[in-house]
Amino acid sequence: MLSIDSITIPLADDLHVHLREGDLATQITPLVRKGGVGRVMVMPNLKVPIITSEMALAYQKTLQKIDPNVEYLMSLYLTQSLTPSELILASSKGVKNVKLYPAGVTTNSSAGVVSLHQFYPLFEVMQQENMILNVHGEVQSNYEKNICILNAEQQFLPFLSDIVKNFPRLRIVLEHITTAAAVEEILRLPKNVAATITAHHLQLCVDDWAGKNHNFCKPVAKFPADTQALKKAATSGNPQFFLGSDSAPHVRATKETSCACAGVFTAPFLLPYYAKTFDSMGKLDMLKDFSSTFGAQFYAIKQQTKMITLVRQQNIIPDEIVGIVPFQAGQDIEWQIVEG
Amino acid sequence: MLSIDSITIPLADDLHVHLREGDLATQITPLVRKGGVGRVMVMPNLKVPIITSEMALAYQKTLQKIDPNVEYLMSLYLTQSLTPSELILASSKGVKNVKLYPAGVTTNSSAGVVSLHQFYPLFEVMQQENMILNVHGEVQSNYEKNICILNAEQQFLPFLSDIVKNFPRLRIVLEHITTAAAVEEILRLPKNVAATITAHHLQLCVDDWAGKNHNFCKPVAKFPADTQALKKAATSGNPQFFLGSDSAPHVRATKETSCACAGVFTAPFLLPYYAKTFDSMGKLDMLKDFSSTFGAQFYAIKQQTKMITLVRQQNIIPDEIVGIVPFQAGQDIEWQIVEG
Repeated sequence: MLSIDSITIPLADDLHVHLREGDLATQITPLVRKGGVGRVMVMPNLKVPIITSEMALAYQKTLQKIDPNVEYLMSLYLTQSLTPSELILASSKGVKNVKLYPAGVTTNSSAGVVSLHQFYPLFEVMQQENMILNVHGEVQSNYEKNICILNAEQQFLPFLSDIVKNFPRLRIVLEHITTAAAVEEILRLPKNVAATITAHHLQLCVDDWAGKNHNFCKPVAKFPADTQALKKAATSGNPQFFLGSDSAPHVRATKETSCACAGVFTAPFLLPYYAKTFDSMGKLDMLKDFSSTFGAQFYAIKQQTKMITLVRQQNIIPDEIVGIVPFQAGQDIEWQIVEG
Repeated sequence: MLSIDSITIPLADDLHVHLREGDLATQITPLVRKGGVGRVMVMPNLKVPIITSEMALAYQKTLQKIDPNVEYLMSLYLTQSLTPSELILASSKGVKNVKLYPAGVTTNSSAGVVSLHQFYPLFEVMQQENMILNVHGEVQSNYEKNICILNAEQQFLPFLSDIVKNFPRLRIVLEHITTAAAVEEILRLPKNVAATITAHHLQLCVDDWAGKNHNFCKPVAKFPADTQALKKAATSGNPQFFLGSDSAPHVRATKETSCACAGVFTAPFLLPYYAKTFDSMGKLDMLKDFSSTFGAQFYAIKQQTKMITLVRQQNIIPDEIVGIVPFQAGQDIEWQIVEG
C-alpha cells in the first residue's frame, strides 16, 4: 500500500452542493473554499425553488457577493412549469444544469416530479442544448410494492436507463449514489452518464445513522458492501465517478429532535474527508482525478489552476460551526489543507 | 373483512418488558396494567444486570411493591459467571427465564455473550430444569462480512437452529422478531421454539425510524415486506407467535439527541396498539390467542381470568408520559380499553 504524507492537487470541483439562502447562505458559503473547493454546482431547492434562469442568475449574484473566490455553476429545478424556451434561454445565459427530484424524497423537494415521461420533451431540448441533467435517483416509498428508503435508489435505475436509451447524447449525472447496484449500472452505461459520490457515503453505512441523526441523509447510507463498492468506484480512476458532496447544512435543533432534517454538512472540511478515505484505501494518488479532473472533463470546463496541498496532520472536527454540527464532529480526520 | 367494534379478552401476558429500576420503575410499572397486561416477563438488563436468583427475587419484590396488581415473571442475564448450581437454584425458586444477549446490541447489554457454545452446558441444565431461554437474536455488525443492523437477525438464525438441534426439548423464545426470514425459521422449527412480536414492529418499517428516533429500537424495523410477514404471523393463529412488547422507556432527552437510545415505549397503551393492527388486518378475533393464550400455553402457566374490553373509540396518544414520548404520540390509535 502506497503511503503518502502530502499531496498537491488543483482546487476541487464540487458538483453538488447546498448553499441555501439568507443568513445561512452568508455564513456557510465562505466555508466552501476552506474545504478545498474552487467551483461548485449549486442546488436549486430553495424555499422558493429556482425555476427560471433569471432566478438562477440572481441567486448566483448573491453567492458571488458573499464569496467571490468561488465559481458558481447554477441549476434549474425541473417542474411542470419549465418550458423549452426557458431552457434555451437558460442555456444561452450559462445555466446549464437541470435538477430532477422525484417528489418528496429530500429537503424542499415537494415540487419535484412524479412521472418522468412528461419531461421527455424537455430532455430533448436539453440534449440539443448540450445541457446536463442532474438526477436525485430515488423512487418514492410504496409499501405495497415493498419499496422503502433502502431500495429506492435501486428501483430508480430502470428509469435512468430509459432516459439514457431515449436521449443517447444527453449528459446525465446520477447524484450521491449509495449502492453497489448504482455503481454497476453506471459502469454499464455509456460515458455521457456519470455519478457523484459524497464524502460521507464513502464512510457510512446504515449502522452509522440509526439513532444518529447527524449522519442521516437522503439517500440513506446502506449496507457495508455498498459502502465498499462506492469506495472502489471513487478510487478506481474511472472518469464516470467524480466529486459531489451534497453538503447540506441543518442547524443542530433540526437534527437533535423527533423528526430530523436529512443532510450531512461536509463543506468546511471536504477534501480532508475524501483524503482520509482515499488514504485508507492506499489510493491517495487517485484523489486528484476524482476531485479536480473528471468532473471538469464531464462538464467540459477547464480544470482549475490554483493548487492546494493536503497534509497528513491531526484535524479534529469542531463540535459546531455556525450552529451546525459538521460531519464527524469531535473526530480526528487526520488530513488538513495547507494553502499553496 | 370482519368488522367488530368491541372485543372482550383476558388480560394479556407481555412476555418481554423493560421495567427499569429506581424512580423510573416507580413511574412506569403501574402503566403496564393500564395497557391491558396482567402478567409480564421482566428483562434483567438493569445497570447492574440481574445474574442471580437472589437479585431476581429482590427485583420482583420491588416491582410487586410498586404495583401488586401485576404478576412478575423474572429472568436471569446469561453471562459467563452463571453456574449450573445457580440455575438449579433459580429454577427451584420460580425464576424460570434466562436471557441471552449477543454482546453489544441493545441497552445495557455489554455484559452479553459473544460465542454461544460456551453456554451449551448451561442450556443442558436449563433443558433438564424445563426453563425457558429468551433470545435477543442478532449477531454483532461486522463490516468485513457485510453484517449490519439490517441483516443481523437473519445472520443469527443459524445459531438458533444449532441450539434447537442440540437441545431438542429446551423451550426457546426468539424475541421481538423483525424479519420474514425469522418468521419462516420459526415455522420450520418445532413447537418448543416460539417468537414474540412487538406492537411497534407490526406497524413500522425502516422509513419510520430514519431520522425519527422515537421509533428507533433494536432490532430495527426493516423492509415493508418484513412488517407484512410479522402481521401475517401474529394474526395467523399459530401458537408459536405471541405477545412480547419490548416496551422500553427512554426519557425524551435521550431520544432527541445526537446518539439516541434504542427502544420504543408502548406499555401504557399496549393492547390498543395491537388491536389497531389486528383490526386493520380484519383479524381482531385472533387477538385473544396472541395476547392472552399462546404465551401462557408456551410458558405452561394458567391463562389469566380477569377480563377487559377493547372498544373502537378515539384514543389520542399524549405527547409525553412521565418524561417519555410514547409510541405514536399525538396520533389516534382508534382503540381504548374499558375495564370489565
